[in-house]
Amino acid sequence: MLSHEYFMKIAIEQAKIAFDKGEVPVGAIVVSNNLIIAKAHNLTESLTDVTAHAEIQAITSASNYLGAKYLTQCTMYVTLEPCVMCAGALYWSQIDKIVVGASDERRGFISKNITLHPKTTYEVGILKDECSQILQDFFKLRR
Amino acid sequence: MLSHEYFMKIAIEQAKIAFDKGEVPVGAIVVSNNLIIAKAHNLTESLTDVTAHAEIQAITSASNYLGAKYLTQCTMYVTLEPCVMCAGALYWSQIDKIVVGASDERRGFISKNITLHPKTTYEVGILKDECSQILQDFFKLRR
Repeated sequence: MLSHEYFMKIAIEQAKIAFDKGEVPVGAIVVSNNLIIAKAHNLTESLTDVTAHAEIQAITSASNYLGAKYLTQCTMYVTLEPCVMCAGALYWSQIDKIVVGASDERRGFISKNITLHPKTTYEVGILKDECSQILQDFFKLRR
Repeated sequence: MLSHEYFMKIAIEQAKIAFDKGEVPVGAIVVSNNLIIAKAHNLTESLTDVTAHAEIQAITSASNYLGAKYLTQCTMYVTLEPCVMCAGALYWSQIDKIVVGASDERRGFISKNITLHPKTTYEVGILKDECSQILQDFFKLRR
C-alpha cells in the first residue's frame, strides 16, 4: 500500500506542469487499487474554458480509462481543495475518497457546505505546505 | 428582441435529442445579442462521463465560439434547474443571465443555497410544464 504522500507528490508534479504553462497550479490524479489511472492539471487558460479544472479532467480521464461513469473504489489526490463545481462533479462520480493537499477557505467546497456523495470520504492537509507554496509562488509572479 | 419562450423552445429541442439517445433529457443553449452561440444536451451516457451535463458542454462550446473564458453578456437557457456542479461552472463563467425551465428541488442549486456570481441573475419557470413533461416521459419509460 503506497502512502498518501507518495500519490500527492505525483499530483504536485501535475501542478508544476500547470505552473510552467502559466495556469493556476493545481494538479489531480485518480488512483484505483494503487494504480494511477488518470493524471491532470488545470488547463482553463490553455483551453479557454472555465470548466477545465484539474479535477474535472481527472474524472473524465479516469472514466475513460475504466469505461465506466462511476469512480467507486477510486481515490482522487488533488493539491487544492475542490471548488463548488468540482465537488459537484465528484458527487456525481460517486468516488470513494478524496485526499486534498491545501485548503481553500475562500473558494473550497467545505466552507460552502457542499455535500459529497454518501459513499465519499475525504481528508485534507496531505503535503499542504508544498501544495500551497506552489500557488503562492504563482500568484507572487503574477502580481 | 426574441422572447424567453422562443429560446427555451430551442433548448427543449436539445432535450429531445438527448431523449432520443437514451440520455436524461436536458438541453441548454447560450445566447449572445440574440444570437445562439452554443447548443448542447446531456451526454453522460454516450460519453461515459458524469461531467457531460448540457450546461457544462454549452459553456465549453460558447467559450470556444467566443474565444473567451467569460460569458459576460450571454444568457443560458436550460430546461432543468442546474445542479451543484453546473451552478459552480456557471459561477466561474460569469454569465450574465440564466433562464431555467423546470425546477429541480432535489438536485438543483437553489435549494442547496449555491451562490451564483454577483454579475449573474436568473429566472425560473419558462415553459416549465413542457420542460418537466419530457423528463417525466423519460423516467416513465425507464421504469
